[in-house]
Amino acid sequence: MGGVAGGMSAATRLRRLDEEMDIVIIEKGPYVSFANCGLPYYVSGEISNREDLLVQTPEKLKARFNLDVKVETEVISVDADKKEVTLLHNGQEEVMSYDKLVLSPGAKPFIPPLDGINDATNLFTLRNVPDVDQVMNYLDNHKPKNAVVIGAGFIGLEMAENLVHRGLEVTIIEMAPHVLPTVDAEMASFITNELRDKGVKVLTSQGVVAMENNGQTLVLNTGEKIGTDLILMSVGVRPENGLAESAGIELGMRGGILVNDSYETNVKDIYAVGDAIIVKNQINDEDAMIALASPANRQGRQVADVIAGMPRKNRGSIGTAIVRVFEQTIASTGLTEKQVKDLGYKYHVVHVDGKNHAGYYPGASMIFLKLIFNPTTGKIYGAQAVGKDGADKRIDVLATAIKGGLTVEDLPELELTYAPPFGSAKDIVNMVGYAALNIIEHLAENIQLTELEQVKASGAMLVDVRTPEEFAQGTIDGFINIPLNDIRQRANELPKDKEIILICQSGQRSYIAQRMLAQMGYDVKNLDGSYLLYKAINGIS
Amino acid sequence: MGGVAGGMSAATRLRRLDEEMDIVIIEKGPYVSFANCGLPYYVSGEISNREDLLVQTPEKLKARFNLDVKVETEVISVDADKKEVTLLHNGQEEVMSYDKLVLSPGAKPFIPPLDGINDATNLFTLRNVPDVDQVMNYLDNHKPKNAVVIGAGFIGLEMAENLVHRGLEVTIIEMAPHVLPTVDAEMASFITNELRDKGVKVLTSQGVVAMENNGQTLVLNTGEKIGTDLILMSVGVRPENGLAESAGIELGMRGGILVNDSYETNVKDIYAVGDAIIVKNQINDEDAMIALASPANRQGRQVADVIAGMPRKNRGSIGTAIVRVFEQTIASTGLTEKQVKDLGYKYHVVHVDGKNHAGYYPGASMIFLKLIFNPTTGKIYGAQAVGKDGADKRIDVLATAIKGGLTVEDLPELELTYAPPFGSAKDIVNMVGYAALNIIEHLAENIQLTELEQVKASGAMLVDVRTPEEFAQGTIDGFINIPLNDIRQRANELPKDKEIILICQSGQRSYIAQRMLAQMGYDVKNLDGSYLLYKAINGIS
Repeated sequence: MGGVAGGMSAATRLRRLDEEMDIVIIEKGPYVSFANCGLPYYVSGEISNREDLLVQTPEKLKARFNLDVKVETEVISVDADKKEVTLLHNGQEEVMSYDKLVLSPGAKPFIPPLDGINDATNLFTLRNVPDVDQVMNYLDNHKPKNAVVIGAGFIGLEMAENLVHRGLEVTIIEMAPHVLPTVDAEMASFITNELRDKGVKVLTSQGVVAMENNGQTLVLNTGEKIGTDLILMSVGVRPENGLAESAGIELGMRGGILVNDSYETNVKDIYAVGDAIIVKNQINDEDAMIALASPANRQGRQVADVIAGMPRKNRGSIGTAIVRVFEQTIASTGLTEKQVKDLGYKYHVVHVDGKNHAGYYPGASMIFLKLIFNPTTGKIYGAQAVGKDGADKRIDVLATAIKGGLTVEDLPELELTYAPPFGSAKDIVNMVGYAALNIIEHLAENIQLTELEQVKASGAMLVDVRTPEEFAQGTIDGFINIPLNDIRQRANELPKDKEIILICQSGQRSYIAQRMLAQMGYDVKNLDGSYLLYKAINGIS
Repeated sequence: MGGVAGGMSAATRLRRLDEEMDIVIIEKGPYVSFANCGLPYYVSGEISNREDLLVQTPEKLKARFNLDVKVETEVISVDADKKEVTLLHNGQEEVMSYDKLVLSPGAKPFIPPLDGINDATNLFTLRNVPDVDQVMNYLDNHKPKNAVVIGAGFIGLEMAENLVHRGLEVTIIEMAPHVLPTVDAEMASFITNELRDKGVKVLTSQGVVAMENNGQTLVLNTGEKIGTDLILMSVGVRPENGLAESAGIELGMRGGILVNDSYETNVKDIYAVGDAIIVKNQINDEDAMIALASPANRQGRQVADVIAGMPRKNRGSIGTAIVRVFEQTIASTGLTEKQVKDLGYKYHVVHVDGKNHAGYYPGASMIFLKLIFNPTTGKIYGAQAVGKDGADKRIDVLATAIKGGLTVEDLPELELTYAPPFGSAKDIVNMVGYAALNIIEHLAENIQLTELEQVKASGAMLVDVRTPEEFAQGTIDGFINIPLNDIRQRANELPKDKEIILICQSGQRSYIAQRMLAQMGYDVKNLDGSYLLYKAINGIS
C-alpha cells in the first residue's frame, strides 16, 4: 500500500527476489513513483516538462517487473484476522486477500484548523502531482502577483524560491524564531539573509491565526493583516496513520507507526516503511520520525529482503537533509545543537569557515561549517554547513563519519580529494576536526555568541585582532582593536586578571592570537564563528 | 628543513604550541608555502596572477608566527652527534645547532638519463615556482606551437589541459598501457577519450628513448621520431633523500625516508614528514610512498605535536587523489584493482553508473563508479569515480568510509544529502553498495570485460537486453538481442545448459533480467559495466 518511495522500492526489490510472487501495489493517487522532491522546481519551470516528474507508470511496471499496480485505489480497511484488505476504486469496493501487507502510506501536509481556512480558495499544499497541478492551474488562471508561504521548512523555502523565479512577490511566515527549524538559529541566519537579498519578506516568530476574504487576507498572531493572492501551506507533515490505526496497529510518538527492526508492526504479517514509521535515531538511540526520501527507499528495499527471508535489520537513521535557497545551500546531518541541548547532553560546538576549493583557484566561495560534539569522547552529534558550493559534499562526508562512528579525532585524518578546483590540502572538514580537537585537548577555548553578553557583563576584555582597516569597517560593540601581528608587542596592554575574548574575521587569526596569549598566561577565549557569524546573525552584509 | 606543506605546517603549529621556541625554516628555493598544486593553472592563465601562487612570505611569517625563514638556503650536511647543520646561502656556509631537526625535503621530478636529454633546451619540469617561471618565459619568448608531455600522471594531464587552453597542440606519451597509471585501465579510458575529444594526441605503451636536435626531436621506443617545440617531463617524482642519506638516516623502499609512527628517523632528534617519507598504507598495512599535499600537511602538524610532547601518532594514509582533465574529473581512493590483484588478495569488483543528481532535474551528468572489495568480509579496498560533476564527492564519501572501516554492507546505509540539485534518493554510493552486497549475498554474479573472450570461447550465450533501437545502434560482438521486457516470455529461447552473459546500457536492466533468469534456473551473469564501459574502453562515442 503506497506506490512512491518506500512502497515501490519494496515491490521492485521483492520481484527481483521472487519471480513468482503476486505483488499488488495499491496507490490512492493517480501516479506512482513520481518525483515528489522535484515538484517545487516544476512551479518555476526549472523542470519544464511535467512528464519528467512521472518516473514510472503502471504499464511500465507491469512490463518490466510484472507488478499489478492499482492507482486511484484506496485501502479503506484491513481485516488482519482474515488477512484481507478492502479496496475502494471508482466508488466500487473490492476485497483482496494478502499473505503479507506492507504499508507505505507516507505523510500528509498538516493543515491547521484556522478560522476561515475552509473558505480559502487560494490555499495549496505541495506533496504530490495533483497538488502541483492545482498550483500550476491557479498560477496560470489567476496570475497571482504575490504569495505567502506559511512554514519555512524545506518545501516552504523551495517554493518561496520557485515562486520568486516565477515572478511573484513572496512572503514567508514562520512560527519558529527562525527559518528552517531543523537547523540551528545561527546557521539559518545565512538563509534568512539570502532570502531577504532576493527580495523575499521573512517573518519569523509569527503565525497565521485566521484567514479572511476566501484566503485573500491573513490574520497574524500579532494582529497584523496581510493580503495575499496565493497561500502555500507547508507547516510540516503528519503520518498517514488512519488505516493503520483502524487496523489495530500500534502507534507511537506523533502518531507514527511503530515497527520493530524487521519493519513488523504489532499485527502479524503487516509491515510498514517510509515517512509514516518511527525509527531509531542512530545517534541517541531514541525514537524519531524522519520523513526523507533516502531512508524511505532503503526501508522499502529492506522490508522486501525481510519478506523474502533474508537477514536484514533497520539500523535506524541519522537524518541528513539539504536545501538550496537561491544561491545558498544549507545542509545538515545528525542532531542539532538545540536537540543535543534539549537532551541534556554534554556538548561543545565549533564553527569554522573556509573555501569550497583552493582560494587561489578562481571561483572559490565560502562554506560555513558547524560541528556539535561531545568534548570528552569526541563523539560527533551533528553538523551543519552553509555556502554557495560544496556544503553537500562536506555534510555527506560528516554523515558518513557519523555512520562509521568516527570521532572528532578522526576528522583531521580524512584524506579527501584535493586539486585546486575541488578542495584544499586541509579541507574544511579536516579544519573543523582540528578546531574541535583543540577544544578537547584544551589548546583552545571558545564561547558562543549567545554567551557574549554575559561574559561582557562579567568585565571581560574584548579584542578584535583584525587589521585597523577591517576594524574601521565595523566590529562588535565593545571590542577594541589590537591587530594580530602586534599582539606579541602589545600583550602588556592586556589584563592578566580578566577574561579576554578575541575575534577576527573568521576565527583563524584570533585562534593564533589565543594560542600566543594563553602561553603568556592570559585567560583568553575565542568568540566562536567570529565577526563573520556575528554579521550573518545580524544581517550585516 | 623544507618550507612548503609539511615543513610549514610543522613550524606554524609548533609556534602555536610553543611561543618561546626558536623555530628556523630552511628552504632551498626562493619561496615558501607556495601553491604548488596551482602551478599548471597559471600556465593557461586560469590563475592569472602570479602573486596568487605565493601564499606566504618570510616577512609575513616573521610578523605573525615569529618564524625565522631562510630562503635560497640549503642544508648541505648534518652532524647528528653535535646536533648541527651546515647551511649554504649565497655561497656562504654557516653552522647552526638544533635541538630537534624536522626534514620535509619533498620529492623532485625524475629526469630519466636519456641520450641527448642534457642538450634539450626546451625541456621543463613542474614542481615549484621557478619551474613554472621557466615554462612561462619559454612560452612567452619562443611561442611554441606544440608540446609533448612525457608521463600521463596528475601533473602531466593537468599540464596537457592547460597547454591546450594556451593554444598549443599537445601530445602525451605514457610508458604504461594507459594514462593515469594510478587508476585502473578501464577507468582511465574515460580520460583518454576526453583527451582525444579535446584534440590531445595520446600515445600509450610508448616511451621516449632519446632526444635529438636540442630536444626538438624525440625518439620513441617504437623507432618513431616526433618533432616538438616544448617538452614537459612528468614521469614521477623521487624523494629528496640526499641529505638524509648522508646523515646516516635509514631509507626504505624507492629511497623513501624511514620513520616510526612518531615521525622519528633512526637518528635521534631528527624527524621527517611529507612526500619523502615512507608511510603505512592503512588498507593493507604495507609500506607506501604517497606524495600528496593532504597527508604532508597533516604530518607536519602532527610532528609539531610530537615535538611539543603531545600524544600523536601517524596512522598512515590511504591515498586519495583527483584530477580534472578538461570536462571530466577522475578521482580515486585506496588501492586499485591492479594493486589488490598484485597483492594476491581475494577481491571482487563492481562498476555502476548513475547521475550526479536527480535525473529529472536539469543538468544531470553521469558518474561512473568502481568499487573494489573483499567478497567475503565486505572490506572496501578502493574506489574510483569519473564524471563531469560529483566524482569528488563520491570519492570523499568512500574515502571516509574506508577510514572509518565501513564495509560494503554499510554503504546502502549512508544517508547522503538529497535534493534534486545535489543527489538522488539512492545515491550512486548507495547503489554501488547494493551492487556489491548482491554479489556478496549471491544474488548477482558478474564477469569483467577482461574475462569476456574466455567466456565466449567456452560457448556462453550472450544477450543484450536493451531495446531493439538501442541494439541496432551498436552492441558488443556476439551479443543477440532480447529486450528486458520480453525476457519473461522469451526465456524458453535461452539454453539451460550454457552460461548466459547479459548486457544492457548501464547494467541496471541486465541486473533485473539476471534476477529473473536466475530464479528460473538459468546460469546467468552480468557483464560488469555493461555496454557503457565497453564503449569507453573502445573509444566509441
